[in-house]
Amino acid sequence: MTLLTDGDMLFPAEPSIRGVARDLYSSVKNLPIISPHGHTDPRWYAENNLFPDPAQLLIVPDHYVFRMLFSQGIDLESLGVPTLDGSPVQTDGRAIWRIFAENYFLFRGTPSRIWFDYTLQNLFGVEELLSAESADRIYDRIAECLQQDAYRPRALFERFNIEAIATTESALDDLKWHRQIRDSGWSGRVVTAYRPDSVVDPDFEGFAGNLDQLGDITGCDTGLWTGYLDAHRSRRAYFKEFGATSSDHGHPTAETANLSDAAAEELFNRIRNGSEDERERRLFRAQMLTEMAKMSLDDGLVLQIHPGAWRNHSSGTLAKFGRDKGFDIPSRTDYVGALKPLLDAVGLEKDLTVIAFTLDESSYARELAPLAGVYPALKLGPAWWFHDSPEGMRRFREMTTETAGFYNTVGFNDDTRAFPSIPARHDVARRVDCAFLARLVCEHRIREEEAHELATELAYTLAKQAYRL
Amino acid sequence: MTLLTDGDMLFPAEPSIRGVARDLYSSVKNLPIISPHGHTDPRWYAENNLFPDPAQLLIVPDHYVFRMLFSQGIDLESLGVPTLDGSPVQTDGRAIWRIFAENYFLFRGTPSRIWFDYTLQNLFGVEELLSAESADRIYDRIAECLQQDAYRPRALFERFNIEAIATTESALDDLKWHRQIRDSGWSGRVVTAYRPDSVVDPDFEGFAGNLDQLGDITGCDTGLWTGYLDAHRSRRAYFKEFGATSSDHGHPTAETANLSDAAAEELFNRIRNGSEDERERRLFRAQMLTEMAKMSLDDGLVLQIHPGAWRNHSSGTLAKFGRDKGFDIPSRTDYVGALKPLLDAVGLEKDLTVIAFTLDESSYARELAPLAGVYPALKLGPAWWFHDSPEGMRRFREMTTETAGFYNTVGFNDDTRAFPSIPARHDVARRVDCAFLARLVCEHRIREEEAHELATELAYTLAKQAYRL
Amino acid sequence: MTLLTDGDMLFPAEPSIRGVARDLYSSVKNLPIISPHGHTDPRWYAENNLFPDPAQLLIVPDHYVFRMLFSQGIDLESLGVPTLDGSPVQTDGRAIWRIFAENYFLFRGTPSRIWFDYTLQNLFGVEELLSAESADRIYDRIAECLQQDAYRPRALFERFNIEAIATTESALDDLKWHRQIRDSGWSGRVVTAYRPDSVVDPDFEGFAGNLDQLGDITGCDTGLWTGYLDAHRSRRAYFKEFGATSSDHGHPTAETANLSDAAAEELFNRIRNGSEDERERRLFRAQMLTEMAKMSLDDGLVLQIHPGAWRNHSSGTLAKFGRDKGFDIPSRTDYVGALKPLLDAVGLEKDLTVIAFTLDESSYARELAPLAGVYPALKLGPAWWFHDSPEGMRRFREMTTETAGFYNTVGFNDDTRAFPSIPARHDVARRVDCAFLARLVCEHRIREEEAHELATELAYTLAKQAYRL
Repeated sequence: MTLLTDGDMLFPAEPSIRGVARDLYSSVKNLPIISPHGHTDPRWYAENNLFPDPAQLLIVPDHYVFRMLFSQGIDLESLGVPTLDGSPVQTDGRAIWRIFAENYFLFRGTPSRIWFDYTLQNLFGVEELLSAESADRIYDRIAECLQQDAYRPRALFERFNIEAIATTESALDDLKWHRQIRDSGWSGRVVTAYRPDSVVDPDFEGFAGNLDQLGDITGCDTGLWTGYLDAHRSRRAYFKEFGATSSDHGHPTAETANLSDAAAEELFNRIRNGSEDERERRLFRAQMLTEMAKMSLDDGLVLQIHPGAWRNHSSGTLAKFGRDKGFDIPSRTDYVGALKPLLDAVGLEKDLTVIAFTLDESSYARELAPLAGVYPALKLGPAWWFHDSPEGMRRFREMTTETAGFYNTVGFNDDTRAFPSIPARHDVARRVDCAFLARLVCEHRIREEEAHELATELAYTLAKQAYRL
Repeated sequence: MTLLTDGDMLFPAEPSIRGVARDLYSSVKNLPIISPHGHTDPRWYAENNLFPDPAQLLIVPDHYVFRMLFSQGIDLESLGVPTLDGSPVQTDGRAIWRIFAENYFLFRGTPSRIWFDYTLQNLFGVEELLSAESADRIYDRIAECLQQDAYRPRALFERFNIEAIATTESALDDLKWHRQIRDSGWSGRVVTAYRPDSVVDPDFEGFAGNLDQLGDITGCDTGLWTGYLDAHRSRRAYFKEFGATSSDHGHPTAETANLSDAAAEELFNRIRNGSEDERERRLFRAQMLTEMAKMSLDDGLVLQIHPGAWRNHSSGTLAKFGRDKGFDIPSRTDYVGALKPLLDAVGLEKDLTVIAFTLDESSYARELAPLAGVYPALKLGPAWWFHDSPEGMRRFREMTTETAGFYNTVGFNDDTRAFPSIPARHDVARRVDCAFLARLVCEHRIREEEAHELATELAYTLAKQAYRL
Repeated sequence: MTLLTDGDMLFPAEPSIRGVARDLYSSVKNLPIISPHGHTDPRWYAENNLFPDPAQLLIVPDHYVFRMLFSQGIDLESLGVPTLDGSPVQTDGRAIWRIFAENYFLFRGTPSRIWFDYTLQNLFGVEELLSAESADRIYDRIAECLQQDAYRPRALFERFNIEAIATTESALDDLKWHRQIRDSGWSGRVVTAYRPDSVVDPDFEGFAGNLDQLGDITGCDTGLWTGYLDAHRSRRAYFKEFGATSSDHGHPTAETANLSDAAAEELFNRIRNGSEDERERRLFRAQMLTEMAKMSLDDGLVLQIHPGAWRNHSSGTLAKFGRDKGFDIPSRTDYVGALKPLLDAVGLEKDLTVIAFTLDESSYARELAPLAGVYPALKLGPAWWFHDSPEGMRRFREMTTETAGFYNTVGFNDDTRAFPSIPARHDVARRVDCAFLARLVCEHRIREEEAHELATELAYTLAKQAYRL
């Protein structure tokens, strides 16, 4: 019978390329997973509880899934997405699952479909296509699995062959789940990453209070510029105790600044006393990227910049369901001018790693590959978010490799909250990269032995090196 | 002998993909044509007269054809394009045809070449390549055909297997040709579409007079905001009597607005008394898109937005030959911020359909697919205008499918004035879509039976459903 | 044994396409090279001296090479790149070569790798892959070759089968090397091109002095607008004496202007007396493009516009090593509005040729192909700079051909300072074009005999015609 996921999935049909792709893939498919950037919940690994029902695990938290269903007129309430005011939503996992199954055809041609099929097959042993007809059988199968110890978070972590995974925590987080993981004696390597948006972005909800809290936590006087910077240093050191090797910055644009100490201090003071305007808030965010880069020079954290999302685009959905409900939309992002202040400040540093992501593919060949292909400190993050898909990852390689080479990229990031999908996502990335390399081999652009080295580097080594894991 | 149009045209060369593409295509090639957006002249169907000579039918009105010839130094006068001042132009169809034939090589690699060969072969039974040498023979052949009743508009309509076709008329049009078609008892389904540019765009030539005329036609007081809106409602209802299922809006940008009633009324008053500035003219156009969308909620017309053309770019050509002479040039178009007011107003409505087109491919993956992949009211129009070509349609699928899926797209639109080319254009679209689906099948991304369903949906069903035809 | 450059390099793997590509390529691979735009040093051809050591020939002057090495943390000093202050850098060619060889893997997937392998094999008879292990053997081989008369510039020129090559000189250059070439009686065709950036760009270093010098050279009063224009006419005529058929303009943007004579004169006066602002400097550059185009109408020089580079992006590198050190970064470039003044002035002229290049691929299908596909005076330059690569050239054809056709493009430009790489670059371009044409043939979009004609035109004829060589 046809498997949900064919062994040749995503390999080009042309037989000679497919043959090389198979060879390359066979040497990387079982490599350990390095997941240096993501959003799984450290509590899972800390408590190691059973996961709830199939819908709560696989549908309700996956914005790729519910945004597609919503686009075709299916209410978020019927998919179990919680409302802010607590008004009722569907809680019956089977009912949610049936809606998803009836509409599974909507995902044809999308990466969600590939990830889902892979997960059904490889994690739950499902052999039939999800549909209205098969919905209940598959639901029961998954629900049964989820009752078993082999499906607890730590068991899955080991089964997935994860060598290291990073979560992402707010600068204000106490990291108690990470502490619990460490104290448990479990050998799984789960590290945190420093995400200070709430204390560097004056537009962040509760910013002033956040700075007060930052002061309380660190014992630094966050009413002063120097104290505020010290507080960051203190938190970064604390995050490093829990394995952090990177910081992560979700700014609306790539804008950076490099003010004099005096000007930065004055700007901070205006923001701290609330007398700043919109331009100054932008400037402060821009300045803080450079400050973070300078701290990275000292403490070695890798700096990740991923600008370009217009967050919570639908006012109505934000009001009813809150943030992160599938309404973050990419927008045009310029890098060449925006990054110049930071690059002038620290771009020539060999011991610094700044990883830039983009949601604007038009910047790949025009801006990001040329920048990463010359600045020692700058590396290119992989195809990201909406572009983390077979066609998106192929375009990334086609548009960046010739100018930046492979070695100014940093392997794959799954960037996901969807724990069960992690092996599927890495498998897709490995397949797409092997397909790309196989084409280069068959067009006599690189030798097959080079492609084997590259396949391993793209699947494993580059991520490990770039993120210092 | 080599046919002008090979049976495998546009199918990938790789044998397994080509095999699947052939199978898919064989099941859709004879499906009826749904042509929900276009610019054929309703008078043709109303009067059902014989078409004039080959040049007047195939060359003089086709801006793709004469722009290419003009770009290589051939005068528009020699191609029979009328001048505004009536200064003489070529009227001998055979002389025009000979110029075209001698320069037919210029179209190598363009869709015009494919459409033309297809039409020569399938409509006129021509078996040889057009050239200076074959020019007269082919001209005579076509001229002879055009004298036959089988080549009258209605006969061609039926021969083309058109199930429904939409024309586009100004809001001020009396729709007399549509009335004549209806009254004739002919069974061909020719519907109109509501195009109000002349009465919503303050920059439109004669705008103030147009509003007066709109008032006269409808009996509404278009000196008042409420009367003006009522006049639109009245005309939309009138257009619906003649089959309209959509409105069509050719704004320079995608900008929308959602003013309060009072602010909209004040803006209208300023524009009505001529005291507005450029910013207010833009704002009025932006507001009117949202007003049209609100009316669509009531009357069910599908709203089409296709921004981004810099119209009549050459001042010299505009002065000498007038509008629409091949000098409309695409320009960069932003959607995420521009559409937000409209989407905040009505984007979550399940019963509304807004179809967005673009001339800026960089917006496919970055903006339009993410927007259409979440807003229930928004769908993606097909690859449009210059991008309505094999490579353009392939890029459209590659850059939109993974995020928007297939089901947030609306099938194919030929958008043409060139009636004889309609079957060719739909054939190209069907071939390109089958080729794309065949690749997905051979790369094991969808199953072959799913591809068969999708092939029919992309060729027929989605257009019919989206446009409510 | 595996050759460095396989005979099928860059041809698609699918056997039927590869077969057609081979046939097409076999008919163009030995065509003479037309190199109408480049930056080789005319002194080489004039003096015909032996080239220095391998590193000085192949590494130190190649910004593609040293920027990649620098991006991975290798100091420019260790690569022999001279410092502005004369502080010491590596001068031992073998030491530089070893660093390059050890890091040759970094170039996997880049065009530099292909060009280098081609050159090693075809120019120096090297049969093994460059690596740390083979470094010294290959270095010795090249060094030995460079001592032979067969490797002098004129011998290589003839061996490369160059029919004509253009260099690029400043408007202030005395063209003494070109004079020496002409006076030598050597038959090689080396022509100059008129590059007036230093005397049309008020931001150019020493602009005022440059204008004085322009006056001295020409005997025109460059203190006056009319005298300044006359000086340009005089220099253009002088450059034409040394074979120039083109001018070349490296403006930061594509902005053009078409002021009245009086306004242009007033602007010139403000700039000449130093009272202008930034906006006026931009406007002057914009106006001068149109002035150059008007002069081209009289003297027949082809006008080349290649905007979009952010020059010398790294302040630190500029201060230490000076200009042109791999830090020129592409940025977003708009053409539709920017070129309108120039196109309104002269765009309909059939006897004028304006060639536009871009570093922003998003402009290919959206702006440049639609413009070149209608304006008689406008042609598209080939994939340029970072996009002069297999994937870049493929995208250029895929994104421009359907709208502009092949005949509004101008063949290939190598645009290089790296003389030994010229055959490699043209070979890559010929291969990529043959591969593209072969796909069109196999998809039945053009006939094989048409593809043969086109292959020759893309490799040879179009460049010769467009540049009037």
